[in-house]
Amino acid sequence: MNKPKIVILGAGYGGIITATRLQKTLSANEAEITLVNKNSYHYQTTWLHENAAGTLHHDRTRLDIKDVINPSKINFIQDTVTEIKPEDKKVVLTHGELNYDYLVIGLGFESETFGIKGLKEHAFSIASINAARQIREHIDYSFSKYHNTPAEKRDELLTIIVGGAGFTGIEFVGELANRVPELCKEYDIDRDLVRIVCVEAAPMVLPGFDPELVDYAVSQLEKKGVEFKIGTAIKECTEEGIIVAKGEETEEIKSATVVWAAGVRGNALVEQAGFEAMRGRVKVTKDMRVPGYDDVFIVGDSALLIDEVNNRPYPPTAQIAIQQGFNVAHNLAVLVRGKGELEEFTPDIKGTVCSLGHDDAIGVVFGKKLTGWKASFMKKVIDNRYLFVLGGPMLVLKKGKLNLL
Amino acid sequence: MNKPKIVILGAGYGGIITATRLQKTLSANEAEITLVNKNSYHYQTTWLHENAAGTLHHDRTRLDIKDVINPSKINFIQDTVTEIKPEDKKVVLTHGELNYDYLVIGLGFESETFGIKGLKEHAFSIASINAARQIREHIDYSFSKYHNTPAEKRDELLTIIVGGAGFTGIEFVGELANRVPELCKEYDIDRDLVRIVCVEAAPMVLPGFDPELVDYAVSQLEKKGVEFKIGTAIKECTEEGIIVAKGEETEEIKSATVVWAAGVRGNALVEQAGFEAMRGRVKVTKDMRVPGYDDVFIVGDSALLIDEVNNRPYPPTAQIAIQQGFNVAHNLAVLVRGKGELEEFTPDIKGTVCSLGHDDAIGVVFGKKLTGWKASFMKKVIDNRYLFVLGGPMLVLKKGKLNLL
Repeated sequence: MNKPKIVILGAGYGGIITATRLQKTLSANEAEITLVNKNSYHYQTTWLHENAAGTLHHDRTRLDIKDVINPSKINFIQDTVTEIKPEDKKVVLTHGELNYDYLVIGLGFESETFGIKGLKEHAFSIASINAARQIREHIDYSFSKYHNTPAEKRDELLTIIVGGAGFTGIEFVGELANRVPELCKEYDIDRDLVRIVCVEAAPMVLPGFDPELVDYAVSQLEKKGVEFKIGTAIKECTEEGIIVAKGEETEEIKSATVVWAAGVRGNALVEQAGFEAMRGRVKVTKDMRVPGYDDVFIVGDSALLIDEVNNRPYPPTAQIAIQQGFNVAHNLAVLVRGKGELEEFTPDIKGTVCSLGHDDAIGVVFGKKLTGWKASFMKKVIDNRYLFVLGGPMLVLKKGKLNLL
Repeated sequence: MNKPKIVILGAGYGGIITATRLQKTLSANEAEITLVNKNSYHYQTTWLHENAAGTLHHDRTRLDIKDVINPSKINFIQDTVTEIKPEDKKVVLTHGELNYDYLVIGLGFESETFGIKGLKEHAFSIASINAARQIREHIDYSFSKYHNTPAEKRDELLTIIVGGAGFTGIEFVGELANRVPELCKEYDIDRDLVRIVCVEAAPMVLPGFDPELVDYAVSQLEKKGVEFKIGTAIKECTEEGIIVAKGEETEEIKSATVVWAAGVRGNALVEQAGFEAMRGRVKVTKDMRVPGYDDVFIVGDSALLIDEVNNRPYPPTAQIAIQQGFNVAHNLAVLVRGKGELEEFTPDIKGTVCSLGHDDAIGVVFGKKLTGWKASFMKKVIDNRYLFVLGGPMLVLKKGKLNLL
C-alpha cells in the first residue's frame, strides 16, 4: 500500500489548479498529495494592482486555501520552501522536510530589477498581498503627510512613479487614475497637484499589443491625467525619486512612491535546485517537466515555454499557468495510475484584456479587438471564470466581480 | 454709517460660538463681522483622538464653516494669521491685512514639549484634522509593513507609545484598544504582538479625577491590553522610539509611533503680539479681555482663568471655551450697541466625562459619578449637545453620535 507521494509547492494559479484538479481526479487511496504554501490563502496575482492602488480590498483578491482544498484528499502545509533537492527527491521547508515521488513547482515570480541602482532598496513591487497593501498604505500615508510638510518638500508626496508600461504598469496606472480623485477628497488635496508618471525604456507602451488598441489606451489614460515618458530609462532610484535618461538627457523626478512594474523572473529556488535555468525559468519539456528530471514538473512563472509561431517565449500569464495546472494534473493521474496517455501542453490563448481602471480596457478576445466597456466587461468575465473553475459558482458569488458594467 | 468692525481669529470652539451667537444677536447694519480661519472647516478638537486612532472618520469631526455662518451677517476669510498688532488695531494674514475695532482671539493650542529632546522631530501630536489623519495613516502604514520587514526590525512597527495619561492620552489609548483588533485583522497580525504603552511622568493617571473612577479606567484599559508606565518620564524621543526613566533606571522602548499627548500651551502669536503671557496664555480680565487692551478678547486655549476655589487655572476645555464664546458675544453686542450690561465670565462646569473607547467611559456629571455605558452615553449626549448649540437639530442628525449605546 505504498501510495505515491505528490508534493505541490506554491498555491498560485498553477499550483492551486493542479491541486484542485488532482483532488477531483484521484481518490484518496491512489496518491498522497501535499500542497505547501507560505500563506494560508491563495490570491489572484492579476488583481494585485487593484489592491495596491486601493481600488479593491485585498480580501476580495484572496481566498482561504481550506475553502477549495478537500483535507481528506490533500494535506495542506503552511510553510516556506527553503530548498529543493531533486537528487534526494526531497524538499526542505522552514519547519521540516518532505519526500516526494512527484514534485510540482509553482513558486511564482520574483521582481527583476536588471541591476538598476537603488530599485531594490527604494522601489516597491506589486508582488504579493503583503506588498500590495503596503503600497496602498504608503500612498495613503504620503497624501496624509502633505498638509503637515513644508511647502518646498511636499510636492513629491503627491508624485507616483510607475516603472514600466507593460501589462502590470498600465493596469496599475489605470487604477491609480481612478483612485487619485478619492485620495484628493480624503486628504483635501487639489487634483492638479498630483502626478502619475509612467516611465518605459522601450519605445512603446504595451509591446506586442495591437497598435490601435495601444493608442486608445494611452489617449484614455492621458485624459485621466497619466503622464507617459516613453523611450526613457530609469538610471537610478533614490530615497527621493528617480533619475531617468532619454538619449543624452537626464532628469530627476522627485517622488515618494516608485513602483517597479517592469520586470519579473522565475523563482531563485529553481536555479538553486541545480536545474538549468535563465532568470529562474526552466525551459521545460513538452509535458512541463524539467529536462532530465521525469519526476519534477514546473507550472507558472518558473516554466519557460517557446511559442513556435514566433520563436519567442510565451509571457508568464495567469491564463497559461491555469492551463498548465490542468495539463500537469492530467499527466500526474496518468503516471500514478500507470495507464492513460500523457498529454503535451499547448497554450490555448483565448484572449488578452488589459484594464484601464474599473470602467475601461483594451483587449483581443477570440480574435476580436475590443475597447471601453465591452473590453472591461470581458475582463471581469475572465476573472469570474477563473473563480468558477477554482471553486464553483459559490466562489464566484463570494469573491467575483459581479458589478460587470 | 461707520459700523464697528469685529474680527474673530480662529473658528475653534470659542471662535465659532462667538461668531454664531453674534449673527443671532446683531443685525447686519449694527456691525461688520469677519471670521478668519486657516481651514474652510471647523472641527471638534475633543473628537480628534478618535480620528487619530482610526475609529471615526475625520469628516464626522469637521463641518463646513459656511454651513453654520450666514454670509449676509459674517464675512468668512480663509487665511492664516501671521501677526497681531494691537497697537495698530490690525491683524496680518498671509494674503492681506484686517483692521478691527474689536478683536476676538480664538487661535487654539499648540503642543508643548517642555524641551524634551527629539519630541518635536519624532513624535506626533493630535493637534488638528491634518495631524490626526496622518497619525491614523502612520499606524496603518506601520502595520502594513510588518510582513515585509525582517524579523529583527519589525516588532517596533506594532508598538504604539502614548506620552501622557491625562485626558487626551487616556481617551486616545481607549480608542486604540478598540482599533487594534481591526488593524490585526486587516494586516494578518497576531494581537499579542501589538503593544499600546501609555507613559506618564506624574505619579498617577488622570490627575484631578476621582481616584475610584481612575482605578476603574486603568483596570478596564489594562484588560484591553494597554500597558501603563506611571511615574515614568520620557527623557528622549528618537527615530527608533523613546528612552524613559523611572527613578535611576532608564529603559529604551522601540516604537515606530510615538504620540505626545501630555502638554499644550496657548498660541505663540499671542505672545508675539506683546501681551503678557505664560506659555501663550494670557491671564484675562473677568470679561475675557486682555489687561490694558479693552478691544481685545481671548477665548479658549490662549485665555488663562483662575478657579478661585482652589486658586489653580481652569483646564483649557471645550466646555469652557464654548461658554466663553457665549459670554464674549454677549459683551460685544453690549459694546457695539452702547447699551446693556457687560457680564463677567464664570465657568459653569456641568460635568466631565473621559471616554475609554466607544463603549466605556468614566465621568462626573451634575455631581454624580458614572462608569461604563452610562458614562459613555453621557459623553455622546454632550458631544451632540454641542452640535445642537452650534447648528441646530439638522447638524446633530448630520454629524452627531447617534448610536448612543
